[in-house]
Amino acid sequence: MRSFRLVLVCQDQQAIIARVSRWIADQGGNIVNSDQHSTDPFGGTFFLRTVFVVEKNLNQAQVQERFRGFMAAMGWEGAFWRLVAEDEPKRMAILASKQAHCLLDLLWRIRSQELSAVVPCVISNHPDHEQIVESLGFSYHYVLATPQNKPEAEARIQEILEKNQVDLVVLARYMQILSPEFSERYAGHMINIHHSFLPAFKGANPYSRAKERGVKLVGATAHYVTADLDEGPIIEQDTIRVTHRDSIDDLRRKGADIERLVLGRAVRWHLEDRVLLDGSRTVVFA
Amino acid sequence: MRSFRLVLVCQDQQAIIARVSRWIADQGGNIVNSDQHSTDPFGGTFFLRTVFVVEKNLNQAQVQERFRGFMAAMGWEGAFWRLVAEDEPKRMAILASKQAHCLLDLLWRIRSQELSAVVPCVISNHPDHEQIVESLGFSYHYVLATPQNKPEAEARIQEILEKNQVDLVVLARYMQILSPEFSERYAGHMINIHHSFLPAFKGANPYSRAKERGVKLVGATAHYVTADLDEGPIIEQDTIRVTHRDSIDDLRRKGADIERLVLGRAVRWHLEDRVLLDGSRTVVFA
Amino acid sequence: MRSFRLVLVCQDQQAIIARVSRWIADQGGNIVNSDQHSTDPFGGTFFLRTVFVVEKNLNQAQVQERFRGFMAAMGWEGAFWRLVAEDEPKRMAILASKQAHCLLDLLWRIRSQELSAVVPCVISNHPDHEQIVESLGFSYHYVLATPQNKPEAEARIQEILEKNQVDLVVLARYMQILSPEFSERYAGHMINIHHSFLPAFKGANPYSRAKERGVKLVGATAHYVTADLDEGPIIEQDTIRVTHRDSIDDLRRKGADIERLVLGRAVRWHLEDRVLLDGSRTVVFA
Amino acid sequence: MRSFRLVLVCQDQQAIIARVSRWIADQGGNIVNSDQHSTDPFGGTFFLRTVFVVEKNLNQAQVQERFRGFMAAMGWEGAFWRLVAEDEPKRMAILASKQAHCLLDLLWRIRSQELSAVVPCVISNHPDHEQIVESLGFSYHYVLATPQNKPEAEARIQEILEKNQVDLVVLARYMQILSPEFSERYAGHMINIHHSFLPAFKGANPYSRAKERGVKLVGATAHYVTADLDEGPIIEQDTIRVTHRDSIDDLRRKGADIERLVLGRAVRWHLEDRVLLDGSRTVVFA
Repeated sequence: MRSFRLVLVCQDQQAIIARVSRWIADQGGNIVNSDQHSTDPFGGTFFLRTVFVVEKNLNQAQVQERFRGFMAAMGWEGAFWRLVAEDEPKRMAILASKQAHCLLDLLWRIRSQELSAVVPCVISNHPDHEQIVESLGFSYHYVLATPQNKPEAEARIQEILEKNQVDLVVLARYMQILSPEFSERYAGHMINIHHSFLPAFKGANPYSRAKERGVKLVGATAHYVTADLDEGPIIEQDTIRVTHRDSIDDLRRKGADIERLVLGRAVRWHLEDRVLLDGSRTVVFA
Repeated sequence: MRSFRLVLVCQDQQAIIARVSRWIADQGGNIVNSDQHSTDPFGGTFFLRTVFVVEKNLNQAQVQERFRGFMAAMGWEGAFWRLVAEDEPKRMAILASKQAHCLLDLLWRIRSQELSAVVPCVISNHPDHEQIVESLGFSYHYVLATPQNKPEAEARIQEILEKNQVDLVVLARYMQILSPEFSERYAGHMINIHHSFLPAFKGANPYSRAKERGVKLVGATAHYVTADLDEGPIIEQDTIRVTHRDSIDDLRRKGADIERLVLGRAVRWHLEDRVLLDGSRTVVFA
Repeated sequence: MRSFRLVLVCQDQQAIIARVSRWIADQGGNIVNSDQHSTDPFGGTFFLRTVFVVEKNLNQAQVQERFRGFMAAMGWEGAFWRLVAEDEPKRMAILASKQAHCLLDLLWRIRSQELSAVVPCVISNHPDHEQIVESLGFSYHYVLATPQNKPEAEARIQEILEKNQVDLVVLARYMQILSPEFSERYAGHMINIHHSFLPAFKGANPYSRAKERGVKLVGATAHYVTADLDEGPIIEQDTIRVTHRDSIDDLRRKGADIERLVLGRAVRWHLEDRVLLDGSRTVVFA
Repeated sequence: MRSFRLVLVCQDQQAIIARVSRWIADQGGNIVNSDQHSTDPFGGTFFLRTVFVVEKNLNQAQVQERFRGFMAAMGWEGAFWRLVAEDEPKRMAILASKQAHCLLDLLWRIRSQELSAVVPCVISNHPDHEQIVESLGFSYHYVLATPQNKPEAEARIQEILEKNQVDLVVLARYMQILSPEFSERYAGHMINIHHSFLPAFKGANPYSRAKERGVKLVGATAHYVTADLDEGPIIEQDTIRVTHRDSIDDLRRKGADIERLVLGRAVRWHLEDRVLLDGSRTVVFA
């Protein structure tokens, strides 16, 4: 018995669920859980995520082949879909800069098997975390990145990502701005954690600006990276209370806890194909 | 075009979703949204809530009749189901005692059409709220209730409820303990708000005991009423931060805000058939 | 025995607390609670709020006179201070437009004595709420306000406020933009509730824009009104979780609950002199 | 210039603040921040925490000696007080069992200088975490603990604690029940994290019981350890939302994030002398 995960995004129309669930039943499959969403039942976009188990020993390629045939028969070739075996984890790279709290948090979630992913490489523009990352059993790549060497640095990073066949790139407080080309190459496959409740405090130094404005909560936002800085589709956000007593350093400290939680949830949901793109927004089947 | 809401609880088995969604498609129906949950895909309990629209002009009795035939054909007669037109609101009674914050909050949500229900009667063991309730346009019944006259009081309340054909009874800080018989008569149709985070501080005076214990959060719990006091299936809970500075009265004040929100959400979800019983627990398709 | 409340804002320097608390002891006073904050102990701004009781029968004017003498003796004449008897409630006006949830929430908090204030007048640019406001026992003034008659409308509102000797003006979803002159007249004495987590979604239609941006939380902000729209000192904020399922109307509904809580807390704190201005920010001794 | 921290607990009476703040001024000290609380201004208990800087070069022993003289002169010898230099960190031991999330979280907070403490020893009844703890630069002691060898195990633990001159013992998911004698020896100096919102789900397996009861939030509680299991004074609590979808393992995973945050805050506050005992409760100057 093996578990598969299907995600499907297409134009909404009659009997989609009936047909897909019939197809699953026809494979001898049993639906374990299923979520759907429609932006408008009459001609809007339909989003489906279904986990099903099949008794017989089918591999991923066979199930994909059959589903491709089904989609063609339905005339739904334009739709977006992904069908994967649940026991084949994604390959995830983590990029970090000087601050390591998000990086270490993710690595510990991987080690404790809370996140189901393979992390073949950690990349940083600072050499500082090499020892701790390697002692946790992960491979560390130091890639110097400056405003001057951006093309070379990005080429080097891309080389590492490709060599390691990475499915997902996580910017765990990676403080270098990536080129639009790089961002677009990993569109929908690169998650950033921004240390504010977007759209408040886009750009640099959000905690200083939060202190300056006198807000009573600070927050964090995990989003897909797009060429348009801090404007990508939001996956998850959360906030924490602060007071007039908190200095900028206190905001950083309190915010760091929220960054870790928010990024951990967003990465988990992405790894489990729970996040579907709806234009500049997301549908999250959490 | 009319919108219907189907809830179904049965033993999980292959192809339930395929069959039900096929049936909906066969009625010319289009699923607007749908939620399902299974406690175990192999022989556990399956929960479904589906909202669908049908183009042709079918009334509730006709759709129910057809679905009854479908269930019989499937051999699923033992299952629990409910199928209602979305534009037929439930009839809700509210019982309250001296404190009116939950009562008034619900009435205002009704008036502002945030909650879709008809409230034919408000019942209280205190005469105090008559003027404000009537000025809001609702009918007020004062029923004296003491430990001595419990049977008579409950008989009178039941009479009012039956005369008004009530589907849902909400105990909005009604401080009389109801008899097991009364509780069982409205099992699954009577919601209470308890002013603590259950199972902490079951029973009387939860805020005093919260102060005594020195907790750092107080909470509220909306649950279905059962014969076993404060042990009924929980629908919704929430908490709010308190400190050593807060007196018992401060806990009451802060707690009252949470009670209102928690009860408002629980009532809303019940009115929209989003709450399904799973033994002593609930499945909430919020 | 009578309870007084002192707030003091001055340049920080040695022995302020020692001197002020000595002065209180010299009046036979006993400090009930006290909060202080300093932006920088060496030359920053010092904020103090102290509640003390005096045994003898002193009235507010006498205590103020003595404290004025103390301040003069200290050479702190430039400092800001307020000293009031705790049993003399502020006079509060509420302005509202079409949506009444914040207005009614405040009126209920007044009626239930959760907020200690006298509300001599409710003013609205819509006639709709007259009956319910008056049935709650408050006086209702309908003042038509349009972009065209702004000067006349503001003059009429000001007349009502002055006639009623109002200390605090609460804009409880009052949707007219006030003139800079009007805003400045009530600087530090006029609280607005904005239906977003500022500085996100300043200006009009925050819920529509929140939906458009795809945020995962919506929020509300209570702030003092300044001539610069939505830029005034923030008193309180909070957020609530939303999902891709929530329509703009759902955001409005969920947000309305947060607006009520946030505004209720901000008004309470202001009425109890817990909010002190620190330039464009606030110190809140909650 | 050096910063000192004074905490004082005594019977409330007139002019305490005046006298203490005068004493600080007399040392040439300047109060940086100060919190006080009284359970009742007429004969209740008074709690004070004051941070002050003195210009001249006084060491901790000298300042303590002077304050002892002041207390004697005041006739307040029965009061509890502590006066420490802020730059002398406490010495903290961490005990853990099989699950390492709380242990590692604390060690990272130490390493990143978010918590100001020296951690001379980590003790565990499992050998598993030795490598990672040592790679982080801390000393690891494996002490086998079974129901059978409890006295020997506790004796060995105590030996390690004493040899390392430990001020604070943190039970970071240490799953052995300590003897009343051991608990009393570290009364007020030993913090436990319990994986439920106390007083709900005292004792073993709180997540299983939370699932069984069908609660909609799970929580965590940091408290001082007393001989009476899970009944010690609560320092901090928090909760996180769960749904019918969450398995017991999901509750554990979600709860683990809250445990880390709650324990991290409680330890921080204790290290900074922000937590004062008020009988079976705490006053937390957070």
